[in-house]
Amino acid sequence: MKSFNVMIGQSGGPTAVINQSLWGAVSTLMEAGQVREVLGARHGVDGVLAGDIVDLRATGRRRWKSVARTPGAALGSVRHKPGAEECARLVERLESFDVRHFFYIGGNDSAETAHLMNEAARAAGKDLRVWHVPKTIDNDLRANDHCPGYPSAARFVACAFLGDEEDNRSLSGVKIDVVMGRDAGWLTAASVLARRAPDAGPHLVYVPERSFSLDAFVADVDAVVKKHGRCVVAVSEGVRDDKGRPIGASGEKDSHGNLQLSGSGFLGDHLAAALKSRLGLKRVRADTLGYLQRSFAGCVSEVDAQEAFEAGAAAAQAALKGRRDGGSVAIVRRAGKKRYASECKLVELTQVAKVTRPLELRFLAGSNDIDPSFAEWLEPLVGELPETGRLLHKSWTPKAARPLPSKA
Amino acid sequence: MKSFNVMIGQSGGPTAVINQSLWGAVSTLMEAGQVREVLGARHGVDGVLAGDIVDLRATGRRRWKSVARTPGAALGSVRHKPGAEECARLVERLESFDVRHFFYIGGNDSAETAHLMNEAARAAGKDLRVWHVPKTIDNDLRANDHCPGYPSAARFVACAFLGDEEDNRSLSGVKIDVVMGRDAGWLTAASVLARRAPDAGPHLVYVPERSFSLDAFVADVDAVVKKHGRCVVAVSEGVRDDKGRPIGASGEKDSHGNLQLSGSGFLGDHLAAALKSRLGLKRVRADTLGYLQRSFAGCVSEVDAQEAFEAGAAAAQAALKGRRDGGSVAIVRRAGKKRYASECKLVELTQVAKVTRPLELRFLAGSNDIDPSFAEWLEPLVGELPETGRLLHKSWTPKAARPLPSKA
Repeated sequence: MKSFNVMIGQSGGPTAVINQSLWGAVSTLMEAGQVREVLGARHGVDGVLAGDIVDLRATGRRRWKSVARTPGAALGSVRHKPGAEECARLVERLESFDVRHFFYIGGNDSAETAHLMNEAARAAGKDLRVWHVPKTIDNDLRANDHCPGYPSAARFVACAFLGDEEDNRSLSGVKIDVVMGRDAGWLTAASVLARRAPDAGPHLVYVPERSFSLDAFVADVDAVVKKHGRCVVAVSEGVRDDKGRPIGASGEKDSHGNLQLSGSGFLGDHLAAALKSRLGLKRVRADTLGYLQRSFAGCVSEVDAQEAFEAGAAAAQAALKGRRDGGSVAIVRRAGKKRYASECKLVELTQVAKVTRPLELRFLAGSNDIDPSFAEWLEPLVGELPETGRLLHKSWTPKAARPLPSKA
Repeated sequence: MKSFNVMIGQSGGPTAVINQSLWGAVSTLMEAGQVREVLGARHGVDGVLAGDIVDLRATGRRRWKSVARTPGAALGSVRHKPGAEECARLVERLESFDVRHFFYIGGNDSAETAHLMNEAARAAGKDLRVWHVPKTIDNDLRANDHCPGYPSAARFVACAFLGDEEDNRSLSGVKIDVVMGRDAGWLTAASVLARRAPDAGPHLVYVPERSFSLDAFVADVDAVVKKHGRCVVAVSEGVRDDKGRPIGASGEKDSHGNLQLSGSGFLGDHLAAALKSRLGLKRVRADTLGYLQRSFAGCVSEVDAQEAFEAGAAAAQAALKGRRDGGSVAIVRRAGKKRYASECKLVELTQVAKVTRPLELRFLAGSNDIDPSFAEWLEPLVGELPETGRLLHKSWTPKAARPLPSKA
C-alpha cells in the first residue's frame, strides 16, 4: 500500500502564510495511505540537488499548527531558477528518492520551474508529477483572482497607511511610502483602504502600470499640498519612466535577472529630495515599507490564512487523485454570492508560469489614483481593519470681552 | 460652580496611544462640576497663540472612545519649542480664554515648555497651572519606569523582528533594521524579544549608549555570518561614533535643533553598502522601520493603552484637587508584585524636562548586545506576542540502494 514518497519545497520571497500552504499540503499527504515518506526540500530545488532533505512526519501536529501561523518559509526558500538541463537532473534526483509527486510553493518563477521539471519528467518517461501552489505578496499570478500571501500583505499596507494618515495629519508635510511590487501595483493600490474621510490619504497612488514622471509627481504633490496643506503618497518600488527605466533603482539584480528594488531606501529618498529642492517643502519624509510587508508577525488576514491552507491541500488532493499530470492551483472568486467566497481550481502550469499579471485596467484611475471599485474588490480579503476615529472640530472662540463702560 | 475653563494640547511625535491620554484627561475634566469649557489647542502651543481652539465637549462619548484607539495626535501636534518670552505670551492668551489649567501631552521638550509656562504664570501671579502628561516612543523621559507610547512601539519592533528573523532564515544573508531612538536605545533594545531560539536574531544590537565603529560593526557581522550563515542586526538611528558624530545623518535639523534621522533610508543603506564592499557579501538588505513604529494601526499594547489613559486622567485629577502648582505625571512600576502593576505619581516638571534618560547601564551587554534582564523588564509591557514555531529538522537520506549482485 505504501507505494511512493512525496516531496515539497518553498521558493521565492516568503509571505506571512506560505507555511499555511505547506501545512495544507503536508497534512493532506500525511493522511494518505499510499504515501510512505512526506519529505521537505530545504531551500527549494537547491535542497533537492544537495540532498538537504527533512522528514516532515518528524514534526508533531501541534508544532505544525504553530509553524503554519509563522511568517517566513519554514523549509527555507531559494531564488534559483534552474534551466532545462538542471530540471532534468532534479527529476533524476527525485526519482532516486522514489518521489512520485513534487510540490513547489512559489510565484511565477517557481511555476515555470515546476513546468520545466514536469516536462522533463514527461520527456524521460518518469513516473513523477510536479505541482505548483501559488504564493506571492505581489498578487501578480495569472489565472488567480488573488494569490495567497497578498491579502495579508495588503492588510499590512492598509494598517500602515491608516496610521500614516493620522501621523501626517498631526504634523503635516509630505509623507511618501514606498510599497513592494516589482511589476504590478496590486500591493500599492491596497493603500486606498486607508481612505476613511474625503480628505484622507493616500492622496496620490503611483503604480508600475502607469509610466512615472518626476515632473508630474512634483506637480501632483504641489497641487495636493495647496489643497490639503499636506500629502500622503503611495508609490510602488517598481515605477518606471516612459522608457521603462526604473526611477532610482540600485542596479543590483537577483539571480532571476530582476532588479533588486527592496531592501534599500533609495527611491523614497530620491523622491523626497526632489520635492524638497523643487517645491521648497520643509517637512518631507519617506519610508520604504520593506520586508515587513511580507513578514511582520501578527498581521495576517484570516481569509488569507485559510485560502493558503486550502491551496496547499488542493494540490495534494489533485496529486493523490492521479487524474492529471501536474498543474497549478488557482484561487477563484465565486461569482454572484452576497458574501465573499472562493474556491481552488486546477490549471495548467503554463497558465501561471513566467508572465506576470498587472493590476487590472478597470482598477486604474488616471495617472495617479485607483478606482473606488478596487477597495470593494479588496475589502473581503483583508478582513476587518482597526477602527479609527476623528474629533469633531467645533471651533471655539471666547465670548466677546465685556465692553468697557461707555463714557457717554 | 462652573468657574473656569481648561485646555489641553499635544506636542512632538505622535504615538499609537497619545489619544488615550487625551481622552483620559478630557473624560475626567468633562465630569468635573467646576469646569466650564473643556478646550483643545490645535497643534499644541501654536493653536493657543493662533486661537485655533476646539470645543472638546462637542465630540460624543462613543466617538471619543474611537478617537482614543486611533494613532496620531487627534488635536494635531507641533514641533515648536517656545522660549521664555513666548511662554509669557502663551500664559496671557490662556488667561484671556479664562483657562485655569493647561495640559500638555508630550516628551521632554514639551515638559520643558510646560515648565517655562508654569514659571511665567507664577512670576506674573496668574491663576494658571500647567501640567505635563508623558508621551514618547523613545522611552527617554526621566522619573518614569517607562513612557506611554513606548510599549506599543516596542511591540511593533518585536513583531517586526519576529518576522524578520523567519524571513532571514528563509533566504539567509544579512538583514539590517534601523530602529527609531535619537538619544536612547530603549526601542532598539526591544528587538531582543524576537529571540526565541539560541540561533535567533537579532544577533547584533547597536544602541546610542555605546559609540559605534564601522570597523567593529563589519567585524561583528562577519563573525555572526561565519557562525550562523546569516545575520540580523538591530541598529538605532541615533548611533554615533566615538567623537559623538552621527553615522550617516542627513544633516537636516528640526526646530528643536535635533538632527533629522528618521524619514530617510540613509543609515541603513550606508551600513549595507559597507558590508557589501568590505565583506563581499551578496545579499545584504536594510529596512528603516520608520514612522510605522509610532503610527501603525492595529499594533497596540493593551497595557500601554490603559496606562496612557490613566496618565491623562491622573493629570486632570491632580489639577482638580488643586493641591499642587502644576507638575508631570510619571509611570512607576510597583515593586515586589508577582504580577506586573504600575501606578501614576506626580513629579516636578523639572524632573522630566529637557534632559533625556538613556537606556540603563544594567541593560547593556558589551558593545553590541543587550542583557537578558531587559527582556524580563519589557515583556509585561508589550503583552503577549504572536506565536511562532519551527519545524523539527530531522534529516532524511534514502535507504542505501540495493547492492548489485556480487560477481563472486
